[in-house]
Amino acid sequence: MSFRPLQDRVLVKRLDAAQRSTGGLFLPESAQEKPQQAKVIAVGEGTRDGDALTPPSVKVGDTVLFGKFTGEKITLDGVEHLILREADLLGVID
Amino acid sequence: MSFRPLQDRVLVKRLDAAQRSTGGLFLPESAQEKPQQAKVIAVGEGTRDGDALTPPSVKVGDTVLFGKFTGEKITLDGVEHLILREADLLGVID
Amino acid sequence: MSFRPLQDRVLVKRLDAAQRSTGGLFLPESAQEKPQQAKVIAVGEGTRDGDALTPPSVKVGDTVLFGKFTGEKITLDGVEHLILREADLLGVID
Amino acid sequence: MSFRPLQDRVLVKRLDAAQRSTGGLFLPESAQEKPQQAKVIAVGEGTRDGDALTPPSVKVGDTVLFGKFTGEKITLDGVEHLILREADLLGVID
Amino acid sequence: MSFRPLQDRVLVKRLDAAQRSTGGLFLPESAQEKPQQAKVIAVGEGTRDGDALTPPSVKVGDTVLFGKFTGEKITLDGVEHLILREADLLGVID
Amino acid sequence: MSFRPLQDRVLVKRLDAAQRSTGGLFLPESAQEKPQQAKVIAVGEGTRDGDALTPPSVKVGDTVLFGKFTGEKITLDGVEHLILREADLLGVID
Amino acid sequence: MSFRPLQDRVLVKRLDAAQRSTGGLFLPESAQEKPQQAKVIAVGEGTRDGDALTPPSVKVGDTVLFGKFTGEKITLDGVEHLILREADLLGVID
Repeated sequence: MSFRPLQDRVLVKRLDAAQRSTGGLFLPESAQEKPQQAKVIAVGEGTRDGDALTPPSVKVGDTVLFGKFTGEKITLDGVEHLILREADLLGVID
Repeated sequence: MSFRPLQDRVLVKRLDAAQRSTGGLFLPESAQEKPQQAKVIAVGEGTRDGDALTPPSVKVGDTVLFGKFTGEKITLDGVEHLILREADLLGVID
Repeated sequence: MSFRPLQDRVLVKRLDAAQRSTGGLFLPESAQEKPQQAKVIAVGEGTRDGDALTPPSVKVGDTVLFGKFTGEKITLDGVEHLILREADLLGVID
Repeated sequence: MSFRPLQDRVLVKRLDAAQRSTGGLFLPESAQEKPQQAKVIAVGEGTRDGDALTPPSVKVGDTVLFGKFTGEKITLDGVEHLILREADLLGVID
Repeated sequence: MSFRPLQDRVLVKRLDAAQRSTGGLFLPESAQEKPQQAKVIAVGEGTRDGDALTPPSVKVGDTVLFGKFTGEKITLDGVEHLILREADLLGVID
Repeated sequence: MSFRPLQDRVLVKRLDAAQRSTGGLFLPESAQEKPQQAKVIAVGEGTRDGDALTPPSVKVGDTVLFGKFTGEKITLDGVEHLILREADLLGVID
Repeated sequence: MSFRPLQDRVLVKRLDAAQRSTGGLFLPESAQEKPQQAKVIAVGEGTRDGDALTPPSVKVGDTVLFGKFTGEKITLDGVEHLILREADLLGVID
């Protein structure tokens, strides 16, 4: 089963401690609403305005950082996922 | 009798437990305002701005997920339907 | 005497019980602010932005459904009419 | 002396009972903020955005209906007039 | 010394009783925030958005009417002047 | 050392009494938030929207008037400067 | 490990006293929300609207001044960094 986000939405899966990149990025565990790491699972086509399509700037597989969480939680294949808007993503960790 | 939604509106019918896709998507029943599954019954032509038409990104027959409900309820052929705006839809379940 | 609505406004006449389409659409009578049926009597030319005209998406004679009422009431030829904005219309009943 | 409204403004003169169209339009006298009839005396050129001009959709001599009054009162040649914005006008009575 | 208003700003000088046009326009003296007459002394070039310039719709020497005062007062050559935005002007008295 | 303002920002230095133009402009000293004179020291490139650049309408060396102060104070070479947005400037004194 | 900011976001590292430019810029240490100096470490591609890309106006290595802090804090390689939006930057110190 697959889930296709609409417009500027992005489906992500939070990374647990073992999966997080540890090459130097440190995000305090305890704090509320600190930036969090996640893996991009699916990406919407972007936003349309007439014929113009504003494409997304992240792709499936990217490790992203997001801050204040305003999305929806869903459970896919037994794992909690989040549906965020692309504007909620702060950046990509390479 | 048919109902043609206007602009970016979408007519959907909530899926009951038997009809829901169960291939891995789990949406808790008890919670308030958790995402819900629905079948798309009719779609508006999209929004117009002068000559430009922004087409809808879902089609009749799609199974969609929507979150916080802000639409209108109507009863068609004895079954409750919802009129949502396309922006209220989170994604399509394939 | 005729009334020509301006811009995106639509002049409608509420349908009474005998006139409503009963092919399957059920709208509870008692509830406040439930969607209501009406007949379109006159339609504005649409909204202009420079040379661009965004035309209306309903036409005279359409049976429309509208929700929360934010328009003006006027009496024409002894019958109460409503002046709505096109965005207040939810859809067309065919 | 003449007064030329600017942009999307319209100068109107309220119609008294004798002048109002009575072919079927009834507007209750007593109510507050009910739609009122007026004659268009002067019209601005419309709104400009760069080279684009959005022209007015009413013309001098039109009998118009307007609702909630948000304009300015001025007295011209001993008669009270109103300066409205075109968007405050509901429609034209022919 | 001269003052060049920027963008959509207009420099005006209020007209005193002797200078006001009296051909029929009556503006009550005593009321607060009633429309007032003024002479246009200088006009900004208009507002820019990229290459597009929206030019002003009044010119130096026009007698204008303005309503609720939201501008700045400055004294030029011993006389109080006002710096208004063009949108605060209601119309031109010819 | 130089400071290059970004976008529509302007770096200005307030003029003291000796430097102010006195050819007729009078700005009361005592009042709060009265317009003030300043010299333009540096100007941003303007605001960008895609390929379109909206250029600034003041240049280095202009004597400008500004009203309600919403900018940032910084000290450059021992002298207090202000970083304003161009929209805060009322006009240019020639 | 590298961090790529998205859209109009900029990754910066605050400059400590030894690193700050001292050629004449003085920013009081004690005050709350006074402008602060920082080095630009990474820059987003800019904001997209359809095909149009609004590019950033700062580049990696720039010393920038920013005011009221509304960004996110992250720790990269043991050093605190900030993720700001380009509009929060006041200017570049050369």
